[in-house]
Amino acid sequence: MSIKFADRMNKVQKSFIREILKVTENHEVISFAGGLPNPVSFPVEEIKKAAQKVLDENGSDVLQYSTTEGYLPLRQYIADRYYKRFGLKVNADEILITNGSQQGLDLIGKVLLNKEDDILLERPGYLGAIQAFSIFEPTFHSVTLKDDGVDTELLEKTLEKYKPKLFYTVPNFQNPSGITYSEENRKALASILNKYDTVLIEDDPYGELRFIGEDVPPVRTYLHDNSIMLGSFSKIVSPAMRLGWICAKVEIMDKLITAKQAADLHSNYFSQRVVYQYLTDNDIEDHIKKIRELYKKQRNCMVNAIEKYFPSEIKSTKPEGGMFLWVTLPEGISSLDLFDVAAKQNVAFVPGDPFYTGDKGINTFRLNYTNSSEEMIEEGIKRLAESIKQIISTR
Amino acid sequence: MSIKFADRMNKVQKSFIREILKVTENHEVISFAGGLPNPVSFPVEEIKKAAQKVLDENGSDVLQYSTTEGYLPLRQYIADRYYKRFGLKVNADEILITNGSQQGLDLIGKVLLNKEDDILLERPGYLGAIQAFSIFEPTFHSVTLKDDGVDTELLEKTLEKYKPKLFYTVPNFQNPSGITYSEENRKALASILNKYDTVLIEDDPYGELRFIGEDVPPVRTYLHDNSIMLGSFSKIVSPAMRLGWICAKVEIMDKLITAKQAADLHSNYFSQRVVYQYLTDNDIEDHIKKIRELYKKQRNCMVNAIEKYFPSEIKSTKPEGGMFLWVTLPEGISSLDLFDVAAKQNVAFVPGDPFYTGDKGINTFRLNYTNSSEEMIEEGIKRLAESIKQIISTR
Repeated sequence: MSIKFADRMNKVQKSFIREILKVTENHEVISFAGGLPNPVSFPVEEIKKAAQKVLDENGSDVLQYSTTEGYLPLRQYIADRYYKRFGLKVNADEILITNGSQQGLDLIGKVLLNKEDDILLERPGYLGAIQAFSIFEPTFHSVTLKDDGVDTELLEKTLEKYKPKLFYTVPNFQNPSGITYSEENRKALASILNKYDTVLIEDDPYGELRFIGEDVPPVRTYLHDNSIMLGSFSKIVSPAMRLGWICAKVEIMDKLITAKQAADLHSNYFSQRVVYQYLTDNDIEDHIKKIRELYKKQRNCMVNAIEKYFPSEIKSTKPEGGMFLWVTLPEGISSLDLFDVAAKQNVAFVPGDPFYTGDKGINTFRLNYTNSSEEMIEEGIKRLAESIKQIISTR
Repeated sequence: MSIKFADRMNKVQKSFIREILKVTENHEVISFAGGLPNPVSFPVEEIKKAAQKVLDENGSDVLQYSTTEGYLPLRQYIADRYYKRFGLKVNADEILITNGSQQGLDLIGKVLLNKEDDILLERPGYLGAIQAFSIFEPTFHSVTLKDDGVDTELLEKTLEKYKPKLFYTVPNFQNPSGITYSEENRKALASILNKYDTVLIEDDPYGELRFIGEDVPPVRTYLHDNSIMLGSFSKIVSPAMRLGWICAKVEIMDKLITAKQAADLHSNYFSQRVVYQYLTDNDIEDHIKKIRELYKKQRNCMVNAIEKYFPSEIKSTKPEGGMFLWVTLPEGISSLDLFDVAAKQNVAFVPGDPFYTGDKGINTFRLNYTNSSEEMIEEGIKRLAESIKQIISTR
């Protein structure tokens, strides 16, 4: 018997990164390919205490089915934190707990996208968003990122021409580029969006991880109402817990809840209770501060090693937070070819290819610095520099 | 700004049960409406020990990102259990860990269903499946359930006429009807399906909970290859953990993994490790035996109370396992009307309405017996009997 799969499955690529991970299974390989938080930052003992406590105090309650929306005190905690950090007034009923913010993307696709709807991404854009939205077979458009945010001139033209249903962004320490939208850029972006019906999706998995400069308010602060924000505990508590959230006004939330219920009834309730207990019993600011200090060292180490070893014609971003930086090779040099050369030197990264929906930026690639020691970063960048020199010389 | 939602959201109803739960928030109401396992069956202390152990022994590993497929030893455990219980040979790479079996339905819909594809459900059918598949806008057909399984004559006609892409079934202690397909019925069903390309979805959340008679092998045992099985730890360990699985051959699995990755990267890894540790360190057979004994008492109590109090013209099923039984009122009496009458007597159930996709069986309703004490069951059925008599007399 031959299975006839749904048409949408022809539009979705298996993650390129999954394929790359095969190369990195070799323990001699220094991998800058993944997007993993540094496990030394995970609060193992505190999570253990929190798990014991919720089971001791609440017994079987925390093992039962729960509501689709999520655990109310956790939703209230998230709402309160928006107010505390940015003065943003959000109600708990505007928060839906999801299985990581990745599920937020699937649910948003479900409730907003008809086949061939126009949607807008950043260029380069987060590949998980490209995957999630591809399932709903939209027509992708993209707008270039500059050093201080989105290209607003190009944005306005694209909005005018295609009237896209949504614009998906990662304004803080973007994945893959590492760039951050300046306050000025956010205001300009908002004032343009306020003229259109396009919904801004503001995904912020790394926002708490700023180690240089000052926090900038979400774009939502300057928007009238066409906003959906996504957040996650993956980078500040634990990714294994798969706890993220969608923040949207009630009109959208109502549809998202229906879609979430059809998708999996509700998110893991035990983990919601454990993470809430952890957040309540510990100094999360202090915990985040430690992660920032750790990542700042790793980022500085990589930025310095790049300056020291890479040929001067290679450009790279200098992130103020988050987990990634972005490298641009001279025109005409393929990062896919570089990947093969570098693999022989036992160093890996993610070629730019999967971060583009239309024309590919073949001469770009992404480096992660959070999951390697400083020694490995120095050694890995040195090897990568050798590979780059080799591929430039054989051009 | 007005949001233009995707067309598919017009096809999906919010769960009727969610609305009903509002009635049951009143603590004086005896509710047979939910589908909750009895929380006294949850292994609270054992889960606590398992959580401690995985964190003590594996530290930050269990808090990190993991693979889309799920924790390999847990997948192997599931595969081994199919062999142990039924002699079914399944490989771990044919198992995908999902967020409860509900997510299995969403992923199957994603990879198989184009808009307006014909699909087949049981009549009455599981409302969670109706919700999950509705998202993909198929054309629903249904085949009547008899006391010993599916109406095979009607099935063959429907397969011949519509060539449906899939047939979704719950052969053990079906939700909502409580009926079980006999071995003979399974063989007949399989021999019909073997002539068509229709994929059998065999959902089995309650299969371990048989308290009368002997286990019957899955329909898959008699099928050539067009089979997907779904399973869940929700009813034998804890629903809060949201751990279910899909068992499918590798050709389908490959697409399911791509869809799962786009949907949420992977299922909660901490809970996978905790549940696997729990399964390894405890006698699961003994645990399941206790749940069966508990539910058998509750089921017998409800069946006896129905015989004692309900007017003799009311028909109801006598489940051999699982969590539900199904009541049929005399023709022309609406269970929606009965719901209002019963609510005034402080007793609740789920009217049949949401379990049908086409013509409604307006005179049917579902009762759950696993989440009420024997005293509550006796009292609740007594009240319900009064409500039924009242509505029959005012006809």
